[in-house]
Amino acid sequence: MGSVRHVTSPAGFSAAGVKCGIKASGKNDLAVIVCDTDASAAIVTTRNQVVGAPVIYIRKIMPRGYGVARAMVVNSGCSNVCTGAAGVKDAQTMARLVAKAVKTDAKKVLVASTGIIGHRLPMDKVRAGIAAATSSLGTDNDDQVVKAIMTTDTREKTALVTARIGGKDITVAGIVKGSGMIAPSMATMIGVITTDVAISPPALHKALVEVSNESFNAITVDSDTSTSDTVAVFASGLAGNKPISAGSADWRKFRSLLGEVCGELARSVVIDGEGATKLVKITVLGARNAAEARIAAVSVANSPLFKCAMHGGDPNWGRIAAALGKSSAKIDPSHLKIAIGGVTIFTNGGGRKFDLPRVESHLKGMEIDVECNLGLGKGSFTALTCDLSREYVAINADYST
Amino acid sequence: MGSVRHVTSPAGFSAAGVKCGIKASGKNDLAVIVCDTDASAAIVTTRNQVVGAPVIYIRKIMPRGYGVARAMVVNSGCSNVCTGAAGVKDAQTMARLVAKAVKTDAKKVLVASTGIIGHRLPMDKVRAGIAAATSSLGTDNDDQVVKAIMTTDTREKTALVTARIGGKDITVAGIVKGSGMIAPSMATMIGVITTDVAISPPALHKALVEVSNESFNAITVDSDTSTSDTVAVFASGLAGNKPISAGSADWRKFRSLLGEVCGELARSVVIDGEGATKLVKITVLGARNAAEARIAAVSVANSPLFKCAMHGGDPNWGRIAAALGKSSAKIDPSHLKIAIGGVTIFTNGGGRKFDLPRVESHLKGMEIDVECNLGLGKGSFTALTCDLSREYVAINADYST
Repeated sequence: MGSVRHVTSPAGFSAAGVKCGIKASGKNDLAVIVCDTDASAAIVTTRNQVVGAPVIYIRKIMPRGYGVARAMVVNSGCSNVCTGAAGVKDAQTMARLVAKAVKTDAKKVLVASTGIIGHRLPMDKVRAGIAAATSSLGTDNDDQVVKAIMTTDTREKTALVTARIGGKDITVAGIVKGSGMIAPSMATMIGVITTDVAISPPALHKALVEVSNESFNAITVDSDTSTSDTVAVFASGLAGNKPISAGSADWRKFRSLLGEVCGELARSVVIDGEGATKLVKITVLGARNAAEARIAAVSVANSPLFKCAMHGGDPNWGRIAAALGKSSAKIDPSHLKIAIGGVTIFTNGGGRKFDLPRVESHLKGMEIDVECNLGLGKGSFTALTCDLSREYVAINADYST
Repeated sequence: MGSVRHVTSPAGFSAAGVKCGIKASGKNDLAVIVCDTDASAAIVTTRNQVVGAPVIYIRKIMPRGYGVARAMVVNSGCSNVCTGAAGVKDAQTMARLVAKAVKTDAKKVLVASTGIIGHRLPMDKVRAGIAAATSSLGTDNDDQVVKAIMTTDTREKTALVTARIGGKDITVAGIVKGSGMIAPSMATMIGVITTDVAISPPALHKALVEVSNESFNAITVDSDTSTSDTVAVFASGLAGNKPISAGSADWRKFRSLLGEVCGELARSVVIDGEGATKLVKITVLGARNAAEARIAAVSVANSPLFKCAMHGGDPNWGRIAAALGKSSAKIDPSHLKIAIGGVTIFTNGGGRKFDLPRVESHLKGMEIDVECNLGLGKGSFTALTCDLSREYVAINADYST
């Protein structure tokens, strides 16, 4: 086999991905990831008030957002959302089945589901899938694992970094799914991150929350927040470093590695955004504070008119200025500067002559850089979005429940 | 000639619409509407922080939002936004030219411009257009007037109601333009409303602000707020009724008539939304209060995924529940009921069996009714939106600055 490894690269992890028939397409639809040890674990979940049964379940077993866990089961094809008490019981049953197979407690098994809203899971198929997955756990199935969490995704999204912490080699790896119903409102997808670093659960949680704000919480595809968003991180501790506590130099180093992995995964979600043909980076500088910088950047990132202009390759600064101005962040057009691809196109309250061929050539590329300097303070934030294409509409209008 | 009359129907108004060459297409692009008397006048303008020069100018001459006015000049093809001090001077020049021609003070002439952002007006053409319009004022040009304020609009948007107030026949008429960059953030378009009722300026302003909240502020096409939104109302007083003051029975009657006109105009903007094929009415009931009802309804109305589902004719209550849940209005799925076309499709925290052919048939129509009862209180609000189609993207991606 010998597929590229990611989630099982850190010491202590095995996994399997199988087809159990939840997806009509017959593609992979269930994955189990297991840690040999009681891993430190942390989760972030959606800010939507309507949440899926798996989110209800994992919030119950991990009310502070961290604890110890041994495994995670993820299915695609059905999100188990708005399925009432029976749906929560299904999520719990998934945890129990995995727990039994890997000889742990159901309270140490996280669950996530993604796919259509409002349908009960076909539990017979899920049961068979969990049996198949838990009996074929290994370290050469990573490719099958990432395939099993995909829905409208067109590409596999993985990331891996290695570094030395406390004199030991450590690895942080992750997989993620998501391409529609993506808004910067925590955590906008399903993601599983594994590492072998030794770290306390609260220190792990603090790092995950902080890096999520700059990664999963800085991206948007369509401003719609999913009901199932969950990112979980497991730390096996088998790297053998002295356990990291929050705030230490080692913690900052780990936080930076986790940030690299989450940043890469978040970026890959936007690149694979439904109908996306371009990645657009919007950096707001000079806001009165960081919160307003975020609001302003996200307002541009979510503007359908701006996103259409990016699709058409048009340096339409009017739509950028209008999107900044409609936000609740303080804007003063006379202090505003807008640049695309490093070329200033708006300053002193209006457009200016600029090197149009250079900007147009930048807009034809796959990655577009937009910088808005509000000129009012020191707040900054970078949001990632994609263009809005006819294909986005096609994907979402022709999708049937 | 004998075109259908609207803005000049109320006693005391004349108007003209001309082509002066601002639009490359050679279509009508400048209109002047004049009142024989010093009319009571009121305005509402955009909430965007980036505002066009005409908005800056009319806010200066009418800082409280009401006063007396004699005329309004509107051009399309160029919005005179982000054009600096020179642009404000251009707006003032337009007012002066009209004032001179109709023998009044420039402070009694309102100005509005719509079209592309960031370009100076071609003032030579504007000057010639104002000369042509003011020399051909009459009551049989209304059709030319409404054409002159259109940009990407595909249809003329007019409304007219008559009634008896204070024993006199009165008329309220209006025209409006707008199809993209429409968000419920006051006033989302350019509109001119005329009436012959006698009413004090503050009473007129209070009526306009109130009805705007239920009409122009209850619609969305794409969640983008324009920099030029302006609705102005002129009351000539020539109906001969006893002048109306705020809060009286006659005022409430007038407010209701004005509400009818603004409601009809707002509705026509959504029907003509860029790429729209359907009008979608979202009524939220049972919110904790009216403010939360508005937030919840607008969240659904702006959701790209919901709008795509409406385009595809799919009764996807998952996207409705998700859009409600992502808003800041309090939602509890177990109290939520969702109906489409009068058929309940979601209750008790989940989907239910329903008459699918009946709902699908409703979704195939031109007007879709969605009702969300949050079951938490007495707040209600109705928002109007349109579906999101490939055509919206085509219009806005292929538009070039």
